[in-house]
Amino acid sequence: MYLHTDQLINEIVVDEPDPAAANALQEGLSGQFGEMRTMMQYLFQAMNFRGDPSSKPYRDLLQGVGTEEISHVELIGTTIARLLDGSPRYNGKADDPIDEPGKGGATPLKIALDTGNIHHYLVGAQGALPVDSVGNPWSGSYVYNSGNLPLDLLYNLMLESTGRLQKCRIYEMTDNKAARSTVAYLIVRDQAHENAYAKALESLGVDWGKLLPIPKTNAEQFPEVKRLVDLGLQSVQYTFDAGNTSQAAKLYRGASPSNDGTELTTEVMPEGHPAGIAPERREEFSPGLDPELLALIQATAEVELRDADETGS
Amino acid sequence: MYLHTDQLINEIVVDEPDPAAANALQEGLSGQFGEMRTMMQYLFQAMNFRGDPSSKPYRDLLQGVGTEEISHVELIGTTIARLLDGSPRYNGKADDPIDEPGKGGATPLKIALDTGNIHHYLVGAQGALPVDSVGNPWSGSYVYNSGNLPLDLLYNLMLESTGRLQKCRIYEMTDNKAARSTVAYLIVRDQAHENAYAKALESLGVDWGKLLPIPKTNAEQFPEVKRLVDLGLQSVQYTFDAGNTSQAAKLYRGASPSNDGTELTTEVMPEGHPAGIAPERREEFSPGLDPELLALIQATAEVELRDADETGS
Amino acid sequence: MYLHTDQLINEIVVDEPDPAAANALQEGLSGQFGEMRTMMQYLFQAMNFRGDPSSKPYRDLLQGVGTEEISHVELIGTTIARLLDGSPRYNGKADDPIDEPGKGGATPLKIALDTGNIHHYLVGAQGALPVDSVGNPWSGSYVYNSGNLPLDLLYNLMLESTGRLQKCRIYEMTDNKAARSTVAYLIVRDQAHENAYAKALESLGVDWGKLLPIPKTNAEQFPEVKRLVDLGLQSVQYTFDAGNTSQAAKLYRGASPSNDGTELTTEVMPEGHPAGIAPERREEFSPGLDPELLALIQATAEVELRDADETGS
Amino acid sequence: MYLHTDQLINEIVVDEPDPAAANALQEGLSGQFGEMRTMMQYLFQAMNFRGDPSSKPYRDLLQGVGTEEISHVELIGTTIARLLDGSPRYNGKADDPIDEPGKGGATPLKIALDTGNIHHYLVGAQGALPVDSVGNPWSGSYVYNSGNLPLDLLYNLMLESTGRLQKCRIYEMTDNKAARSTVAYLIVRDQAHENAYAKALESLGVDWGKLLPIPKTNAEQFPEVKRLVDLGLQSVQYTFDAGNTSQAAKLYRGASPSNDGTELTTEVMPEGHPAGIAPERREEFSPGLDPELLALIQATAEVELRDADETGS
Amino acid sequence: MYLHTDQLINEIVVDEPDPAAANALQEGLSGQFGEMRTMMQYLFQAMNFRGDPSSKPYRDLLQGVGTEEISHVELIGTTIARLLDGSPRYNGKADDPIDEPGKGGATPLKIALDTGNIHHYLVGAQGALPVDSVGNPWSGSYVYNSGNLPLDLLYNLMLESTGRLQKCRIYEMTDNKAARSTVAYLIVRDQAHENAYAKALESLGVDWGKLLPIPKTNAEQFPEVKRLVDLGLQSVQYTFDAGNTSQAAKLYRGASPSNDGTELTTEVMPEGHPAGIAPERREEFSPGLDPELLALIQATAEVELRDADETGS
Amino acid sequence: MYLHTDQLINEIVVDEPDPAAANALQEGLSGQFGEMRTMMQYLFQAMNFRGDPSSKPYRDLLQGVGTEEISHVELIGTTIARLLDGSPRYNGKADDPIDEPGKGGATPLKIALDTGNIHHYLVGAQGALPVDSVGNPWSGSYVYNSGNLPLDLLYNLMLESTGRLQKCRIYEMTDNKAARSTVAYLIVRDQAHENAYAKALESLGVDWGKLLPIPKTNAEQFPEVKRLVDLGLQSVQYTFDAGNTSQAAKLYRGASPSNDGTELTTEVMPEGHPAGIAPERREEFSPGLDPELLALIQATAEVELRDADETGS
Repeated sequence: MYLHTDQLINEIVVDEPDPAAANALQEGLSGQFGEMRTMMQYLFQAMNFRGDPSSKPYRDLLQGVGTEEISHVELIGTTIARLLDGSPRYNGKADDPIDEPGKGGATPLKIALDTGNIHHYLVGAQGALPVDSVGNPWSGSYVYNSGNLPLDLLYNLMLESTGRLQKCRIYEMTDNKAARSTVAYLIVRDQAHENAYAKALESLGVDWGKLLPIPKTNAEQFPEVKRLVDLGLQSVQYTFDAGNTSQAAKLYRGASPSNDGTELTTEVMPEGHPAGIAPERREEFSPGLDPELLALIQATAEVELRDADETGS
Repeated sequence: MYLHTDQLINEIVVDEPDPAAANALQEGLSGQFGEMRTMMQYLFQAMNFRGDPSSKPYRDLLQGVGTEEISHVELIGTTIARLLDGSPRYNGKADDPIDEPGKGGATPLKIALDTGNIHHYLVGAQGALPVDSVGNPWSGSYVYNSGNLPLDLLYNLMLESTGRLQKCRIYEMTDNKAARSTVAYLIVRDQAHENAYAKALESLGVDWGKLLPIPKTNAEQFPEVKRLVDLGLQSVQYTFDAGNTSQAAKLYRGASPSNDGTELTTEVMPEGHPAGIAPERREEFSPGLDPELLALIQATAEVELRDADETGS
Repeated sequence: MYLHTDQLINEIVVDEPDPAAANALQEGLSGQFGEMRTMMQYLFQAMNFRGDPSSKPYRDLLQGVGTEEISHVELIGTTIARLLDGSPRYNGKADDPIDEPGKGGATPLKIALDTGNIHHYLVGAQGALPVDSVGNPWSGSYVYNSGNLPLDLLYNLMLESTGRLQKCRIYEMTDNKAARSTVAYLIVRDQAHENAYAKALESLGVDWGKLLPIPKTNAEQFPEVKRLVDLGLQSVQYTFDAGNTSQAAKLYRGASPSNDGTELTTEVMPEGHPAGIAPERREEFSPGLDPELLALIQATAEVELRDADETGS
Repeated sequence: MYLHTDQLINEIVVDEPDPAAANALQEGLSGQFGEMRTMMQYLFQAMNFRGDPSSKPYRDLLQGVGTEEISHVELIGTTIARLLDGSPRYNGKADDPIDEPGKGGATPLKIALDTGNIHHYLVGAQGALPVDSVGNPWSGSYVYNSGNLPLDLLYNLMLESTGRLQKCRIYEMTDNKAARSTVAYLIVRDQAHENAYAKALESLGVDWGKLLPIPKTNAEQFPEVKRLVDLGLQSVQYTFDAGNTSQAAKLYRGASPSNDGTELTTEVMPEGHPAGIAPERREEFSPGLDPELLALIQATAEVELRDADETGS
Repeated sequence: MYLHTDQLINEIVVDEPDPAAANALQEGLSGQFGEMRTMMQYLFQAMNFRGDPSSKPYRDLLQGVGTEEISHVELIGTTIARLLDGSPRYNGKADDPIDEPGKGGATPLKIALDTGNIHHYLVGAQGALPVDSVGNPWSGSYVYNSGNLPLDLLYNLMLESTGRLQKCRIYEMTDNKAARSTVAYLIVRDQAHENAYAKALESLGVDWGKLLPIPKTNAEQFPEVKRLVDLGLQSVQYTFDAGNTSQAAKLYRGASPSNDGTELTTEVMPEGHPAGIAPERREEFSPGLDPELLALIQATAEVELRDADETGS
Repeated sequence: MYLHTDQLINEIVVDEPDPAAANALQEGLSGQFGEMRTMMQYLFQAMNFRGDPSSKPYRDLLQGVGTEEISHVELIGTTIARLLDGSPRYNGKADDPIDEPGKGGATPLKIALDTGNIHHYLVGAQGALPVDSVGNPWSGSYVYNSGNLPLDLLYNLMLESTGRLQKCRIYEMTDNKAARSTVAYLIVRDQAHENAYAKALESLGVDWGKLLPIPKTNAEQFPEVKRLVDLGLQSVQYTFDAGNTSQAAKLYRGASPSNDGTELTTEVMPEGHPAGIAPERREEFSPGLDPELLALIQATAEVELRDADETGS
C-alpha cells in the first residue's frame, strides 16, 4: 500500500515560462529512459520478485527505489507544468483576447503552432503529458523484468546510467533555472541509484574498477549539481518505507562504487517542499468554470467537515 | 512524495494456479480501462490541476483516488503472479525435469505454448506484465487530462464504470478463488470511485436520477461482492494522505449516488494484509542463482545493520 | 456528403455462433488489408486528388469504390457480431447463470478464455472490434496516398488482390455458412475492384496479359463464389453516387482484364437486404438496463413523432 | 449501405495557404478526439447495437450522427488539403525550379523542413494525412464500444465535448479564414451532438442542470461561431437516412440541454456546397503524368458513355 | 558493403511440422530481445561509432557481431518457415481439398484458427513474420545506441544474456528437433557474444568474478547444447570481414569470462550448410502460379546466361 | 550467411553539418518506404520463398536486391551521422562550453530544442536513428510478404517507385551536397530495382508500355542524378553473391522497361569507398571516456595480434 504527502521531493526554482525546455523534460518524465519507466520497472520487479528469504534486501532495495521514482514523476511532471504555465501570454500578448476574438483577430494560443509539442496546448492545458520529447506515448513494452536477478540488476544499472546521461544532455540544452533545478536533482539521484544497483552486483562478486559512474562526466562541475554532490545526495538512499522494515541497508552500505571516496548510507525519506495549485488558464478553458459553476464549487469548499461528519456517520 | 508499506490493500485467497485467469486479470491491470491507467490518469490530473483555491477538494479527491490506484496495481499484479506461480508443473509433471532434459525429452515449460500469453513464461518468469489480455502494452495515450474540470470528472466517472463493467465480466469468466477475491474487491472499490466522481459532478449541479451505478448489475449477488458491500466498502473513500490535510471529504459526503441508501464517509487508509516473497522457479532461471552466487547473497543477508551503520557513518 | 440506408449490401446466411470464424473475419474488417483500410485509403485519395479536369473519371472511380467499402465495413462487422452473438451459451450452458453465481459456480463467459480474441467478450459485448485477427488495432499508417496517380492505382490494385487472397484463405479456414456467405461476396467484389484499378492502368498503357486476376485461384470453384460469379458480380461497379454525376464508367468499361470473357458495366447501387437489432446479452451487461431504465426507454419509444413535431416546431 | 453526393457539408472560405494551421487541423481530423474517431466509434456502436425493439431510436441516433461524421472527415480533410495546396511556393519562390535544379540550387520543397509535419510534403503531396497534430497515426484502440448503453452514451457525450474543446483551442491558434470557417462549423455541430447524447441520457433520467454545454466557453462570441448559432445549427440534428425511417427524433426533441432556450429539431440533411479537383503540384510529382500519359487520360475523358454502354451491354 | 553466400550458418535438423514451436521461435527472431534486434542494434552502433583511432577494435567487434546476427536472422527465420511448412495437412487431412471445396466442406487451413499466430497462414504463407511470439511487430524503438561506449557495451552484454535466457526457456517448451537444433546453436553463440562484450568491459577495468555466464544455467546439460560447447563454439568469435582488416581479436582473446577454462579465439567465418527452396503450398495460393504462368517461369529458367550476355552487352 | 567489407557502396560528398537535412534523410533510412524496409522485406521474401526449382532466378533476384539494401542502410545511416556530426557547435559557438557551464550559462546542445528530431542529440549522440522523419520508430508491420509471387513482385515494384518518389522530394528539400550525393545515388539505384521487378513481371506476361519509370520525373535533370544515369547505374544489378551462383541474370537482361533505350546487365558488386570512424563529441558524453579509461583502450589497441594468437591457440 502507498501513502502520499502533499510535498515535493525537491524545490523547483522559479523562472520564466519556457515551453522548449518543458518539451525536453518530457524525455525525463515519459521517455524510454525516464522516470515513469524506472518507476514502473521497479514496481513490477518488486511485485514479481522471486527468491529464498535471504534475498529480501534485494526486493526491499527495488521497492524503495521504485517508490522514490513515483515522487520523481511528481517532481518532473510539476516542473513541466510550471514551465508551460502562462507561456502563451508570456511575451507581451494582449491581456484577455479570448473574450473578444473579433476585435483584431488575436490568436491567444498561436504559440502552440511552433512549440516543442502542440499537444501541450491542444490536448492538455499547459500541463505535462505521458509522452517523450518527440511525442511518442509511454509504452508498457519499456518495462524490463526478466525474473533473473543478475540480469534485472544489470539492466537497472544501465537504465539509471542512461537516465543520468540524458539528463546531463538536457542540462546542456537549456539554462532555464526551473528546468535546471529539477534536472540537477535527478542527475544526482540517478547516481545514487547507480550506486544502489552497482553495490547489489558487487555483493554478487563484481568489481567495477574505475568504470563508474557512467557517464564519466564533469557533471559535478555543473553548479547546481555540485551543490547537491557537496551535500552528499549521490550517496544516500531512501527506503520510503512507512513501516521501516526495509533491509536495503544491507546492500547500500560501505564505500561508494562511484570512486568518489564517500560512504553509502540509508534514510527513510527526505524533507519535502510544499506544492500548490496552479492558476486558471482561460485560453485553455481550464478549469472551464463559468460564474455559476464557480459559485457551486465555492459553496462546496465552505462545507464544514464537521457537518459532513455529522451527516455521514 | 510517496511512502510504501509492506502490506497489500486486500487479502488474496489461496487457490490453484490458473494461467487463463491470470491472463484475463491482465486486462484489469494494464488494459485500456485497468488500474495502471486509472493510476496514471489521476496522478497526471492531480499534478496538472488548475483552479482557484476553493477547488482544492477536487484536487485532493483526484490525488487520493490516484494514490489508492497504485495499491490496486500492486494487488492485481501480485494476484496475477500467484495465479501463474507453479502453473507449469501444476498438473503432475515430473519433479525436476530441467536438470536432465536428455532423460526423456521432458519440456517443463510446454504449458507456455497454449496459454493466454506465452510471454508470462518466455519474457517474464511467471509474473505479471504491463500488457492487456491480448498482449498490447500499456500506452501513455490512454491517459486523459483535458484540464477542463467537468470533462475530466465526466471521463473519470465513465472510466471507473467501464473498469467495473470489465471486472464483472472477468468475474463471470473464472471461478478461481484467488482471481475472484481480487476481482470482487475491485468491483466494490470501482463503485466507491464511481460515487466519488458522481458526487463531484453533483456538486456542479447534475442529478443522476436512477442511472447509477453503472453497470446496473446484480453484481451484489456475486457472493464475494455481496460480503464487501455488506461491509459498506462501496461507500467509503480513503485519502491515503500521510499529512491528513485532504479536503476530499467536502465532496465525498451525504447520500450515495448509487441509490443504495448508504451515506458516504472518508477514512485515511484501510488495514493492510501481509505480502511476501515468491519461491524460486528454476525452470525460469529465476532468480537464477547457482550455489556460489546464493552463498554470496546469504552472506549479505547476514550482515548486521549495526555493522553497516558503524562502517557507513 | 454521405447518406445511409438501413440495408446491408448483401444477405448474411444464418448459421451457428462461431467465435473462431469471427476472429478470422476480423482480418477482413480491420487488418492491414481489410475493408476499413480500403475504405479510408480511397476516401483520402479522393479528398486529396489532384489533376487537370480531364482526370475526373479517376477521382470518381476512387470515390465510388471508397463509398462501397463503407458498406463492406458494415457487412463484415455485422457478420462478426452475428457469429459472436450467443456463443457463450451455445453449447448447452445453463439458461440464466448470471443471477445466481453462488449456486454452483457457473462461469457464463468462460468461453472468452480460450477463444480467438478475449476482447470480444471482455472489452466489447460479443461484437466486432477495430482490430485484426491477432488483436492489433487498425492504424492510420496503413493508408497509402502518395499523390502520384500511377503509384496510387498500382498500390490499389495490389491492395485489392491481397484482400482477395486473404479472404480466399479465410474461406479455407471455416465452413460456417454465415462466415462463408460474406467472405464469398467480398472475394467477388474484390475482383470487381481489381478490375477497376487494372482498367485504370490499362488506360495509361499497361497490358496485363494473363496476370489477372490475382490470386490465380480456383476460387470460382468455391460454390458460394461461383454463384455470384455466374451472376456477373465481379464485372459490375457501383458508383454509389446519389447525384449520379460520376464519370467512373469512362474507365470501367470494355473487356474485363480478368480474362474471363465478360464486359464491364456500371450501376448506381445494388438492391439491399434488411439489417436489424441484435438481442440483449445479459452476461455482458449489454445494453445493461434494469427494469426501471427499460421502462424509461419504452416510454421514449412510444413518443409520437407528431407530438415531437408539435413541441419542437 | 451508404451513398455519396459530390457536395461538401459546409463551405470552405478561401484564404492563403497555411501549413501550420493545416497541421493543427490534423488533430481535428485524426486525433484521438477528432472526426475519424467519432465516425468509427458511432459506426461500430450502431453495427454492434443490442436491445429490445423499443431501443431503435437510440440505434438510429448513433447511426445518424455516425453518418454525419463521415461528411465531417471529408470537410476537414479537404480544408487541410486546401491549406497545404501551393504552400511551398506561396511566398515568392521561383516559378518552376524543378526543371532546372542546377540553375541556382533552388529547393522547391524547402518549406517542408520546418513545417508542422514534414510528411505533408514528403509522404503525401500537400494533402491531408490520417495522423494527429504530432504525427501519431490514427489507432483503432481509440474506438470505445462497451455495449452498455448508458456507458456508451456517457462516453459519446464526453467525446463530443472534448472535440469541441479542442476545436475552440484550434480556433485560438490561427486566424486563417479557411481554417476558422471549418473549425467554427465543427464547434457548432459538436454542440448539436453534445445535445443529442445529453438528451438520450435525459431520457434515462439524468438532469444536467447548468453543466452543459462543455466547455462552458464564450465560443458563441467567436464571430464565425456566432453566425451559425444564430442560425440555430447547434439545435438541429440530421438523420442522413436515405430511407427516412430513422426514429432519432423521438430522442432529439424538446428543450435543448445546452440551456440556450432553443428547441431541438431533426432534418434529413443540409444543403451541400460544391467540392472540386485540386490543381497539379509538379514539385510533388503529383499526379505525376508526363505529356504522353496525360494524353492517354484525356483520351479516356473524351470517351462517350454511350459508346461504353454500347460496348458494355 | 555486404555480401551473401547461399549457405546457412548452421544445419537445421529435419523433424515434423510444429506451428506452436514455430510461434515460440518468433520471439527469438523478432521479439524485443531477438536476432533482428541484436542485428539492427549493432549495425547502428557500428555506423554511429565515435572515438579516437585507438578505439577501432571496439568498432570492429560491434560490426562483426552485427554481421553474424544477419545470418542468425536467416537461420531462425528459415527454421520457422520449415516448422510451419505443410503443417495444415500434417495430421492426415485429404490430399487436395482446395480444388473441390464443395465436395464435403473440407477446410484445408482450419489449423490456422487455433494455432500460435493465425497470421502464419492468413497474412504469410506458412513462413516467418517480423513479429514476436504474441504478434507484436518488431519496433525500431528497441534499438539502443546511446553513443556512450561503456553504456553501449553494458547494454549489449545484458541483451545477449537476455536473448540466451529466453532461448533456454524456449528449449524447455518444445522437444521438436528442428526447433531445438537452432535454439541450441543460438544459446551457444549468445554466450560467445556475452563473452565478447564482457571482455570489452574487462578491457575497461571490470572484473566479473563468478557472475558470468548469465543465466547461470545448466544449459550445457541440454544434449544439443553440450555437443556444441564441447566443440568450443561458445569461445570463438567470427569477424565476417571479407577484407580481413578487423581488429576485434585485440579484445576477443585470453581467458573466457564465462569461467569455463577456455581461451577465446577469432576466425573469419564458419563453414556453411546448404539452404534450398521450399515447395509450393497451393492452399496458400503460394506462389500462386497457374499452368500458364508457370510455363512462362520455366521458359525464363531455361534462358542460357550466354544468350543473356550476348543480348545484354 | 553474410560477409561485410569495410567500404561504403558510394562516396559521401563532404559538406557542412545540416540537422534539417539529416532529419529528412531519416525517412529514406527508416520510413515506411525507406531502406530498412526494403532490406527486411526482401530478406523475408527470400527466406520464405516457395516454388518449383525453375523459380530460382526469382529467389536469387530478391536475395540480391535485399543484400544490396543492407549496404544502402549503411550508406544513408552514415550520411545522417555525418550531417549531424558537429552541428551543435557549427555556427560559432564557444569552443569547450561543457567544462565550464557556470562561466556564462552556455548551453552547448541548445540546437537540439528546435531541430528536426531532438532525439538526435538527446537519445543518440549526433547519429542516425531507426525512426522516420516525424520520429515514428520503424515497424515490422511494414514488411509485406504474401507468399504469392505476382503480388510480392507487384508490391516490390510499387515500393521501389515510392522510395524513388520520396527521395526525389527530399532532393528538392535541401541543397546540402552530402545529403544530395547520397539521395541522388539512391534515386538511381531505386530505378535499377524498379527495372528488376518490372522485368520479373514482364517474364509473367505484363507489358508496361510507357508507364515506367515511376515517378515520371525529370530527375535525370538533377545534375547529381544525371551523372550517375550517364554512367548507366540505373540499368545494372548487383548479385552481391559471394558464391556467384545467382541466376538473377536470367531475369535482369534485355531492354530496360524504363524506356531509356539501355540494355540491362548484372555484376557481382561495385567498387567501394572507404568509411572511417567519427570523432568524439564531448558534449554528448560520447564515447564518454575519461583519461583513465582512454588509457586502457589505447593499451588494448597496442596488443599485438601475434600475442593474441600465441595465447589463444
